[in-house]
Amino acid sequence: MAKIKVGILGATGNVGQRFIQALDNHPWFEISALAASERSAGKKYGEVADWKIGTEIPETVEDIEVVTIDPKKIDADIVFSALPADLAMTVEPAFAKEGFVVASNASAFRMEEDIPLTIPEVNPDHLELIDVQKKNRNWDGCIITNPNCSTIMMAVTLKPLLQFGMESINVATMQAISGAGYNGIYAMSIYDNVVPYIGGEEEKIETETLKIFGEFDGGKIKNAPFKVSASCNRVPVIDGHTEAVWATLKDDPKPETVRDAFLKFDPGLSHLPTEPKHPIIVRDEPDRPQPRLDRDMGNGMSVSVGRIREGIRYVALGHNTIRGAAGASVLNAELLKEKGYL
Amino acid sequence: MAKIKVGILGATGNVGQRFIQALDNHPWFEISALAASERSAGKKYGEVADWKIGTEIPETVEDIEVVTIDPKKIDADIVFSALPADLAMTVEPAFAKEGFVVASNASAFRMEEDIPLTIPEVNPDHLELIDVQKKNRNWDGCIITNPNCSTIMMAVTLKPLLQFGMESINVATMQAISGAGYNGIYAMSIYDNVVPYIGGEEEKIETETLKIFGEFDGGKIKNAPFKVSASCNRVPVIDGHTEAVWATLKDDPKPETVRDAFLKFDPGLSHLPTEPKHPIIVRDEPDRPQPRLDRDMGNGMSVSVGRIREGIRYVALGHNTIRGAAGASVLNAELLKEKGYL
Amino acid sequence: MAKIKVGILGATGNVGQRFIQALDNHPWFEISALAASERSAGKKYGEVADWKIGTEIPETVEDIEVVTIDPKKIDADIVFSALPADLAMTVEPAFAKEGFVVASNASAFRMEEDIPLTIPEVNPDHLELIDVQKKNRNWDGCIITNPNCSTIMMAVTLKPLLQFGMESINVATMQAISGAGYNGIYAMSIYDNVVPYIGGEEEKIETETLKIFGEFDGGKIKNAPFKVSASCNRVPVIDGHTEAVWATLKDDPKPETVRDAFLKFDPGLSHLPTEPKHPIIVRDEPDRPQPRLDRDMGNGMSVSVGRIREGIRYVALGHNTIRGAAGASVLNAELLKEKGYL
Amino acid sequence: MAKIKVGILGATGNVGQRFIQALDNHPWFEISALAASERSAGKKYGEVADWKIGTEIPETVEDIEVVTIDPKKIDADIVFSALPADLAMTVEPAFAKEGFVVASNASAFRMEEDIPLTIPEVNPDHLELIDVQKKNRNWDGCIITNPNCSTIMMAVTLKPLLQFGMESINVATMQAISGAGYNGIYAMSIYDNVVPYIGGEEEKIETETLKIFGEFDGGKIKNAPFKVSASCNRVPVIDGHTEAVWATLKDDPKPETVRDAFLKFDPGLSHLPTEPKHPIIVRDEPDRPQPRLDRDMGNGMSVSVGRIREGIRYVALGHNTIRGAAGASVLNAELLKEKGYL
Repeated sequence: MAKIKVGILGATGNVGQRFIQALDNHPWFEISALAASERSAGKKYGEVADWKIGTEIPETVEDIEVVTIDPKKIDADIVFSALPADLAMTVEPAFAKEGFVVASNASAFRMEEDIPLTIPEVNPDHLELIDVQKKNRNWDGCIITNPNCSTIMMAVTLKPLLQFGMESINVATMQAISGAGYNGIYAMSIYDNVVPYIGGEEEKIETETLKIFGEFDGGKIKNAPFKVSASCNRVPVIDGHTEAVWATLKDDPKPETVRDAFLKFDPGLSHLPTEPKHPIIVRDEPDRPQPRLDRDMGNGMSVSVGRIREGIRYVALGHNTIRGAAGASVLNAELLKEKGYL
Repeated sequence: MAKIKVGILGATGNVGQRFIQALDNHPWFEISALAASERSAGKKYGEVADWKIGTEIPETVEDIEVVTIDPKKIDADIVFSALPADLAMTVEPAFAKEGFVVASNASAFRMEEDIPLTIPEVNPDHLELIDVQKKNRNWDGCIITNPNCSTIMMAVTLKPLLQFGMESINVATMQAISGAGYNGIYAMSIYDNVVPYIGGEEEKIETETLKIFGEFDGGKIKNAPFKVSASCNRVPVIDGHTEAVWATLKDDPKPETVRDAFLKFDPGLSHLPTEPKHPIIVRDEPDRPQPRLDRDMGNGMSVSVGRIREGIRYVALGHNTIRGAAGASVLNAELLKEKGYL
Repeated sequence: MAKIKVGILGATGNVGQRFIQALDNHPWFEISALAASERSAGKKYGEVADWKIGTEIPETVEDIEVVTIDPKKIDADIVFSALPADLAMTVEPAFAKEGFVVASNASAFRMEEDIPLTIPEVNPDHLELIDVQKKNRNWDGCIITNPNCSTIMMAVTLKPLLQFGMESINVATMQAISGAGYNGIYAMSIYDNVVPYIGGEEEKIETETLKIFGEFDGGKIKNAPFKVSASCNRVPVIDGHTEAVWATLKDDPKPETVRDAFLKFDPGLSHLPTEPKHPIIVRDEPDRPQPRLDRDMGNGMSVSVGRIREGIRYVALGHNTIRGAAGASVLNAELLKEKGYL
Repeated sequence: MAKIKVGILGATGNVGQRFIQALDNHPWFEISALAASERSAGKKYGEVADWKIGTEIPETVEDIEVVTIDPKKIDADIVFSALPADLAMTVEPAFAKEGFVVASNASAFRMEEDIPLTIPEVNPDHLELIDVQKKNRNWDGCIITNPNCSTIMMAVTLKPLLQFGMESINVATMQAISGAGYNGIYAMSIYDNVVPYIGGEEEKIETETLKIFGEFDGGKIKNAPFKVSASCNRVPVIDGHTEAVWATLKDDPKPETVRDAFLKFDPGLSHLPTEPKHPIIVRDEPDRPQPRLDRDMGNGMSVSVGRIREGIRYVALGHNTIRGAAGASVLNAELLKEKGYL
């Protein structure tokens, strides 16, 4: 069977490189186009990408000629968007109009009423918003989005807790510097330091979570009724977001019961190539999970939890540019393909 | 007026060095004895102290001959204890029995019913437990303690919030590596990493806070009625504990009202030499306080707060080995002197 | 063909874990025994190894029962030694006497006259010292060693420069903290710091290099005649040693000529499973190689060079616990097998 | 006696802040003007300076109104320049023409024939180039410069070695991130990393050193005859440059002799307010100097040396933005005043 052709918009940046890593040797998808700014267009990817992942740049993309971010320049069925929000705002609709499926990691359209904000393990049914969207907007293609990185880690772990009656959530994040992009943070700002602020991040966690856990009646999503209160911090860690979560649950389950729920969590997606064996890994050591040791579990797609205590309090951790960005989009695309949208 | 003679128990360690720094050129106190393990005894302090603070070792202590930790070897009115908890358990009572005032940073006796656990700006009246203690234990001297470092930063900031009716507190800490002592954490454990666990720390914050804010009726302390839930994390920062606090307050004050309360906070202790001009500093920048930039404010004795948001949520920060340890003990001793106990 | 059985001595430590990583799914070798201290013996490897590499522990070793470091407990043809030098001093001869080939990463026997100190790309002929050794010592087995991590990076890059007439070398190293073992360095010692000293390291580079480049006449090795002067520093980097090298060469070649020599370097070992495609990778960017970006090249077995300038000066970099330790020993064993010693 | 009025050009940046720190409460100088870009002009310094030093901003400058970098706006006898090289190129001559003494930390004019490049402890006589300069250029004022930060640390330590006959120098630097300015280096570039390249730095060390040690005959400086070869590296350290130096000396002195020379080094400048008690501090511990522990010695003005070994090899260390920048300029100005040029 021929592979599905995929393009990457914003292919040279931090998340763009993670998309390439996630799609290299993918069993269903094949990179057919790499799009970036004018400056890079016309040159070989290997020449313009300042490859920073710490592995060799995949040979399959090294010689691909980079094109501008223009629907006419791209031969693909789906494009993955690693664009900044402001650029995504105009570019993504242009691609959707031209018939492309756009799987976006950008925040531009996440909170739009008719655009799915999806984590396959959490709210796969929301993908069906696509039908509403196409009708509304008269597009041949469509846009689907994945949540913000810090939202994803938490949301995956909240899913198995819903059964206990979610009342409210407090979450303090300790986020990696790669989350701000390669050029996002100066060394003098974060070394031997914590920055207790990430612009827009708390709002994203607080609003996106409610949409993700909202009820979809085939037409609209009704936001989840609980409250999320976030305190976001940047810490001197390269990759991997750590989150201290307090989940107030109506049934007041014991920590062991919550641990069991995490262990039993099986969203039934193991046939998707990017889905890890364990979407949630439970660590019983007193001092895990830790970003340097656990961020790469499940090829960076597992969320690790630990320190489940009364409260219920626990720690969640995942790789922000894989599980929290490129991998999240690719997993969404795989689900889309399985559901017949691709 | 002659200065009061002070000794330091555990003078060579991390906190011991901070005691020396805090007492060097002190207007009321004069270091008369430095006590450490057998290994160091008999040698000059400058030879055995592996001075690690990043300033020159004060000349006044360089040539002092270190003695063993023995009441008979020490000529002083008060001793500051930077001992580990297990050693403090037997040593501190021995000194108190021999008539010394022991101002301890150790955790050994903090939660004892008749031993004050004091922060001068928060519960100065608890010092009067000394009278109960002396009677109970038939000691000539006494033991007073200061709370754990992470408790102190939070407690100082909770004091001006009490007026709004404290109901419950969630706190996520991001603590510096110096808090574990110079040899407490391996570089491979914390570099590019977060360790979401510090042994015993959460229990300390949760129990000490209730004692500190307890009501003292002249005989006993009745614990404060609110609940504290802590999640403690170690982050790659040299000095300075950062804390994300959620304080649920009965009166539901606005952030501006809380900010005002912080600004107006004046415990009336400015005559104590170690008391900073502002025990609480309010930062209005969106991204402050930060440990590297704010830990040394007020000579390391100010607690900085910022990001006061609805909830009430805010960030508190202080220097863990100064405000949270040596400086806390010295400030307690100054208050003791003022109250006539010294 | 049945795989060769291999044991690992000191299997639970930092380098022991790297041996497991290097031998997992090895086409020629199969792990048959994991030996560690009494404390771990009798338990499953997965239970006692505090796995710290940041990948899942290989399933093939998780359930292996750890044995004590005793020749009688081990069924293998070759053992890899990740033991500390003092323990290696008595243990390794015991294994050699019992007929084992011991491929050691320890420093204990590196400088012994009849024990090969080998890097396959540099001095493969020195392996034949084994014959002398067996005769001398009347052993059924033998000991072969690989150099110290910082020596290896430099020696690999010196090999193609020999043709220009080596006169003297100055090298300043910037070494990763993993080189000291997981528990080797306190966070307070190295964070925001450089430690310009590593015990014994300069002597190792200065003496080992001369033996490696020594002439072997079938009986003895005559040390190379040039001089090496090293200045070793520890820097806050997890993995990867960076070295600034000055090589004074008789022919005074131009930087381009040296670059060519690096590019053309082909030791003809590409049939060995652990040999990377490029043992030396030449980076032409002005600011490479860098440890975080280049240490994993060639699965951690390539040495990257860059900044080749007049002098001749250049920068060399390699992964200290792979190319500089476990991978070095495994590559030696592969060469041994090829030469018929296994 | 009235204090001399001083202005600071580029007062809001990293080095500008260090100038303020060095001049706050200075016994001879008094800050009368703070100049910065248009954007900051007209506002209070405390409002526009993003103060990043980790101490309170001095009250004496908080309310000073920032002016543009224009000779007409500034009432001062001397201006300190913390400008970037390109801006310094046009601005500094404009000030000199208008009669100001310009003490510059910028690289723009360091290598000009008639402009002194001075370290008071090393080549105080070069200041007399001012007379040549004024004549040449027909200026009422003048420009004097201090060397690049990494040059200064080394040059101070080379001075007492000159007596042994300097033949050549190799130096590998490990430089702090503050050296690139607050916004100079991205966190993703340097965390868990070494960058073996700093643009223009090696050339600066190699050329500036020869001018500094050049012979001044009253008219011209004849460059020193020895050769300097540098390899410059950026390491994850906030402040403090560490340098591994090889000095080939004709007399081949023993390490003890060199140590003695360092200890006896007394440039006779102890009457200058910024001169530290010991311009060179000798550390005898095997693992010192270290940037975090030694950079602040002598208020950041001492250069610490250690690990003096045969070769002669040693390690030198100093605070790059104090001894290597602002403090160097202020010390030059103090010498100028003493010599009657101010």
